[in-house]
Amino acid sequence: MAASLIDHYRASNRAATAYPPLTLEQARDVDERWGDITAEPGGVDYLETDAGGVPALWAEPHGCARDRVLLCLHGGGFIGGSMYTHRKMFGHLAKAAGVRALIPHYRRTPEHRHPAPVDDATTAYAWLLDQGIEPGAIAVTGDSAGGGLTVTTMLSARDRGLPLAAALLPFSPWVDLEFTGETIVSRRGTDVLFGGDTPMNLTALVEMFLGDGDRRDPLVSPIHADLTGLPPMYIQVSEDEMLLDDARRLDEHARKHGVEVRLDEFPGQQHTFQMSAGRSPVADDAIARMAAWVRPRLGL
Amino acid sequence: MAASLIDHYRASNRAATAYPPLTLEQARDVDERWGDITAEPGGVDYLETDAGGVPALWAEPHGCARDRVLLCLHGGGFIGGSMYTHRKMFGHLAKAAGVRALIPHYRRTPEHRHPAPVDDATTAYAWLLDQGIEPGAIAVTGDSAGGGLTVTTMLSARDRGLPLAAALLPFSPWVDLEFTGETIVSRRGTDVLFGGDTPMNLTALVEMFLGDGDRRDPLVSPIHADLTGLPPMYIQVSEDEMLLDDARRLDEHARKHGVEVRLDEFPGQQHTFQMSAGRSPVADDAIARMAAWVRPRLGL
Repeated sequence: MAASLIDHYRASNRAATAYPPLTLEQARDVDERWGDITAEPGGVDYLETDAGGVPALWAEPHGCARDRVLLCLHGGGFIGGSMYTHRKMFGHLAKAAGVRALIPHYRRTPEHRHPAPVDDATTAYAWLLDQGIEPGAIAVTGDSAGGGLTVTTMLSARDRGLPLAAALLPFSPWVDLEFTGETIVSRRGTDVLFGGDTPMNLTALVEMFLGDGDRRDPLVSPIHADLTGLPPMYIQVSEDEMLLDDARRLDEHARKHGVEVRLDEFPGQQHTFQMSAGRSPVADDAIARMAAWVRPRLGL
Repeated sequence: MAASLIDHYRASNRAATAYPPLTLEQARDVDERWGDITAEPGGVDYLETDAGGVPALWAEPHGCARDRVLLCLHGGGFIGGSMYTHRKMFGHLAKAAGVRALIPHYRRTPEHRHPAPVDDATTAYAWLLDQGIEPGAIAVTGDSAGGGLTVTTMLSARDRGLPLAAALLPFSPWVDLEFTGETIVSRRGTDVLFGGDTPMNLTALVEMFLGDGDRRDPLVSPIHADLTGLPPMYIQVSEDEMLLDDARRLDEHARKHGVEVRLDEFPGQQHTFQMSAGRSPVADDAIARMAAWVRPRLGL
């Protein structure tokens, strides 16, 4: 009776494939329900701020290390998701890690196109440095499109000559905008969000986001980027999701460039299953693993 | 596809009448979904605090008058609801009124009985005064059981010799724990939460909360209280809900004691329809009316 991740994905899928199509406002209202999946973590304050011109939400667990920060980049295919939908999920992660989280509300498509999200995420990262947060006290994390952004934001920061963060934690990352992974086909039957009876039109989504821009641009598909010198990376993904190969190829590609990487695959889960935090032991375990991995890398 | 107030009430009703009965934990998880109805107001910070020993949540709209406070008492039959379920709804009200909101997380039944909720609400009120907030800068509001508490908290404050607040705004208030109102019967067909196909066992709920305590105790059923000297009161209720007569009798009873009262009845709405704020024009209108009514009474 209560909304679950799978219920929400089915609703999202119906919304994305509705005919006549939903208005953007209607689609965004469906999308806002995404956050309903997550239980309230409790003991976390939420404060809206302006991160160098980018609206953002601080999630501040009581008793956390205030000088350590997770920069949290929400998913949603660059078209959906927000600092509100992901508030509780990143709140759980920040609470488990004992640090603050900054969740930028980056510009989305169709109103904005690439490179708006990566620009905004990089601006928020630079703003954290301007606030006196040490780069070694920052980790960057994100799910799905935000998982891709986790990597591209570091590349963009490097391009701007900024010092790099201490660690990256992309989960269910979307890092190949050409969809060439084998699991895009083989996991169609088990991926409720992107596959199922009414597969989402992912090509149309990319068209909206990139126009005729290059799908292999390293700042949109970081499996084509030079990842040399990037901080240690911890990737999580579900074995049943169509983006499984995105995670595996990111893992492989990062190793090839000498990055320390860990990849955990979770059987029988959906895309971004961590959104069920507080209601699913697997989600809670995944978040606990991320927290345990990142703490020593932030000097905790 | 997205959760609405009526969907949630049907789910609550099923949960309350399930056989075998749900565990308290299961019932509370259903109850936590109540807040999913409300859209995120935006531009509001949320900070957990300790209000004299009572956990509570501050909702602080950006740019609000920080020295003016709404004390917000959530509903849920003294068994459910929380500072989380009502965060967004009271966030909308605080934002519309341009003031801060304090939402106490008062002790609930079955773990605690009367007078725990009214004691905790009164403690939170006294704590606001201790923080230097002027009584004339405080209004008390609440829905359902919290609407009853809005009145009983003032009576309890008066008993403790505290100065009274500037205004009271109970909505869909539950003020007669004997259920003697005519609309308890006549509105059974239209009240989805309490009535419908599987009417809720309201007597059992009162039993749990009061044991063999007096149902006419003025601190549980304020239609039996001396309301003389209470601040101006603005009541909202739906014409279709079983508690309509609770609102009407509170209105009548307060007038009889010389209290300035306004009662607005909303046709075709459900109990505590204000929870649909941000997604229902009627809810938004109701909240706008409360805000417009309370602002001058708080000197704004």
